Amino acid sequence: MADPSFEDAIAILGGTGQQGLGLALRFAKAGRPVLIGSRDVERANAAAERVRAAVPGAEVAGGENSDTCRRARVIVLSVPFESTTSTLKTVRGSLVAGQIVVSMGVPLASATGGPATQTLGVWQGSCAEMVAALLPKDVDAVSAFQNVAAHRLHDLDRPVECDVLVSGDPQPRQRIMALCDLVPGLRAIDGGPIANARIAEAITALLIGLNIRYRIADGTGIRFTGLPDPRS
Amino acid sequence: MADPSFEDAIAILGGTGQQGLGLALRFAKAGRPVLIGSRDVERANAAAERVRAAVPGAEVAGGENSDTCRRARVIVLSVPFESTTSTLKTVRGSLVAGQIVVSMGVPLASATGGPATQTLGVWQGSCAEMVAALLPKDVDAVSAFQNVAAHRLHDLDRPVECDVLVSGDPQPRQRIMALCDLVPGLRAIDGGPIANARIAEAITALLIGLNIRYRIADGTGIRFTGLPDPRS
Repeated sequence: MADPSFEDAIAILGGTGQQGLGLALRFAKAGRPVLIGSRDVERANAAAERVRAAVPGAEVAGGENSDTCRRARVIVLSVPFESTTSTLKTVRGSLVAGQIVVSMGVPLASATGGPATQTLGVWQGSCAEMVAALLPKDVDAVSAFQNVAAHRLHDLDRPVECDVLVSGDPQPRQRIMALCDLVPGLRAIDGGPIANARIAEAITALLIGLNIRYRIADGTGIRFTGLPDPRS
Repeated sequence: MADPSFEDAIAILGGTGQQGLGLALRFAKAGRPVLIGSRDVERANAAAERVRAAVPGAEVAGGENSDTCRRARVIVLSVPFESTTSTLKTVRGSLVAGQIVVSMGVPLASATGGPATQTLGVWQGSCAEMVAALLPKDVDAVSAFQNVAAHRLHDLDRPVECDVLVSGDPQPRQRIMALCDLVPGLRAIDGGPIANARIAEAITALLIGLNIRYRIADGTGIRFTGLPDPRS
């Protein structure tokens, strides 16, 4: 594809995983250019090919993580929690002022051999706050998308049916909230300061437990009641 | 009223507070005998009078906390987090084997002068686990009702519109789940082991933040999507 605009493009690091690829599919379907990053360029290109096959006319390209994250204002970090620090250390030198890094990782205990229904304590309070601590001062961290089931993202014929808690400083938060609202069935919720990622991340462990106890293969989600629908 | 049966009655300690009184109203409306406990018998009797006024024919009585909790299988602990330990120490000697104490407290930072949008760390992991640690071994603790807004409980003409995460050992958990389903608009969700109270309690702080950011006077709630509706 032609080089997409820095403002329009969405880079997804770890976009070859199920949840990252799911977001790539949804953003491509919403008409946004998507850049899929991976340590392995071949895998990134294969994932881009899958998006093009599912979304005819999609603007999507694969690339190495550092190259990819130079090319978009918004960078979604969709790597497993245990790869978060190493990935950020690798790409940190490629980031530029004003970029927004979206943390969707969850410190599930499965990262260290425990159950995915429990979380690890993270020194900074949450994966998102750890990400924020690892970024240059002029790059913003925003927390989002942890509670969205990969299966539901992949099923492009159905709305996702999940609220997305978006937490961080007001300006970058607003920008990521607008992204959520591009995807049918996602609703962006103003999740306040980034420390609230502690709660959003814990909710993912809870949803995984619900998936197990209620045998929900497609994954459960979350809705807040009593809010005005921002789209109505 | 005549002495209600131990099995049918629901004791609510701290039932003079807004959330406890709200539950009292809803359980009374569902036809269950309700015992409202307080340190102050006069206040407990006044709360019982309010329930009778709102729910004609309600079986409801007030009483001192220790007296009250002798008289029902299920005891809902609806005191502020900071009064939880002292209340339990007061009533502990009155508990009998096989009772179920429902923890609905949340360790909001407001207990120690902080904002109600943040939680305190509790040594045991959550208020509910702290309650469990304070109970005699033959009395079960179950976590429930933290996310239900008091305003919505009081508005008897409208369904509450909130899922209730119920966590604890399977047998007492099932019993409390059945109680939730008596109230229109509440849906009991199998919240797994009591340690998941950590997440349910944190969600309350999140909902309080949403109430502030979205200016929702009646209070927001939560629903899980993708689950089979147990009532359908």
